[in-house]
Amino acid sequence: MIQLAIIGTGNVAFHLAKAFSTAKNVLLSQVLGRNTEALRAFEPFAPVSTNLKSIANADVILIAVSDNAIGTIANDLQDTEALVVHTSGSTSIEELSNLKRYGVFYPLQTFSKTIDLEYSKIPFCIEAKLQADLKLLESLATTLNASYFYVNSEKRAALHLAAVFGNNFGNHILTEAEKLCNQNEVPFQLLKPLMQETVKKAFSIGPEAAQTGPAKRGDHITIKKQKASLDNPELQQLYTSLTEAILKHYER
Amino acid sequence: MIQLAIIGTGNVAFHLAKAFSTAKNVLLSQVLGRNTEALRAFEPFAPVSTNLKSIANADVILIAVSDNAIGTIANDLQDTEALVVHTSGSTSIEELSNLKRYGVFYPLQTFSKTIDLEYSKIPFCIEAKLQADLKLLESLATTLNASYFYVNSEKRAALHLAAVFGNNFGNHILTEAEKLCNQNEVPFQLLKPLMQETVKKAFSIGPEAAQTGPAKRGDHITIKKQKASLDNPELQQLYTSLTEAILKHYER
Repeated sequence: MIQLAIIGTGNVAFHLAKAFSTAKNVLLSQVLGRNTEALRAFEPFAPVSTNLKSIANADVILIAVSDNAIGTIANDLQDTEALVVHTSGSTSIEELSNLKRYGVFYPLQTFSKTIDLEYSKIPFCIEAKLQADLKLLESLATTLNASYFYVNSEKRAALHLAAVFGNNFGNHILTEAEKLCNQNEVPFQLLKPLMQETVKKAFSIGPEAAQTGPAKRGDHITIKKQKASLDNPELQQLYTSLTEAILKHYER
Repeated sequence: MIQLAIIGTGNVAFHLAKAFSTAKNVLLSQVLGRNTEALRAFEPFAPVSTNLKSIANADVILIAVSDNAIGTIANDLQDTEALVVHTSGSTSIEELSNLKRYGVFYPLQTFSKTIDLEYSKIPFCIEAKLQADLKLLESLATTLNASYFYVNSEKRAALHLAAVFGNNFGNHILTEAEKLCNQNEVPFQLLKPLMQETVKKAFSIGPEAAQTGPAKRGDHITIKKQKASLDNPELQQLYTSLTEAILKHYER
């Protein structure tokens, strides 16, 4: 039985607390945060506290806060014997190097408070200073039926950046696509099967083999026609940037 | 029983011929194309021919060729009594207006020869000059268990352009994400659950509500750090364009 404490009250903290509170072989002993109001949402999962000094006995302390607050919290935990891990994609493991035992437990996924997740489908990128602690993090991921991968801080930063491209940028493109649908009074939902297939194809035959469309074909007539049909300057700018990126990529 | 002939040998023609050849209540009577070699792949589905003049009796003739060839083929079909439809997203129904009965049967999906599709998940955008022919196209979509929507040429062009954003541009972003993974020797496949969740969220809570990341937060420190970490000029350019698009979108 792994005793776990979570520090943080954001979306990642919320989903991990919720999942660990019902997982087998793990006991969520406490959730800690500065914000009393935000902590209320965690009361169904574990005892809550605003006092970091009062942290309960734990095998693992999981810091799920914004990147720039990790260092400060690590300073407050200097005396602990527990394994302390953060959940950040872009923060080095060395941010915790003033502690005795430290590591990283990064879920490569997007978290929104209102959307439930299937943990068995989330890859956790794990890293630890000590070999024995890596095993502990494996066990922790396993309590959620999740998969885990050894990823060092440098590679994790690259993965996180690739995730920014895929999720942040991919989602923004859908925001613009939705705007286009709304302007023309067609339902955005019609694009859902296409987008599911887009992801399926990119991860089966690879995105380069899956690329289609006027820019891939170098079809400048269609490109000109499509660009002219966009009266929104933001849409037009995005259309131009991405079309030029594709033209350039495939002219090599 | 609807008798159907298909003109074309590309990916759309291939998948539709394959699907209709085993569908109930429809008989794929012929597949026609200029390229004898390409027609061979269609022999398991129906008799094939290179001679448009030899077109068999058909209730519906489906033109699945490149956009700029639709007009020429329509000219060759001037004497037919059949309903003639094209499958293009961006081509007006009027491209077929020299015919007696004409319409559009546009599958809003991405087609690759090697990837099988679930037709029940493909929305067909249908349009016809005559009301009775619209019913015929409904029946045709129904033989594939597919859903259908009435969409006029103007709205269809907008949907097609939204699909270019979502599929073409979204897929290219994944191409760059894959490049980033390869450069840093991390498996691109780790991003699959994230991308599935990205699409799921965008179509449940909407892409604007689903947006996360440094650009959405206006976190210029992380943006600067991420940009500096990209040594590939194409990746850097794409990062900048999309980050600026998100910053601009959410500053309003």
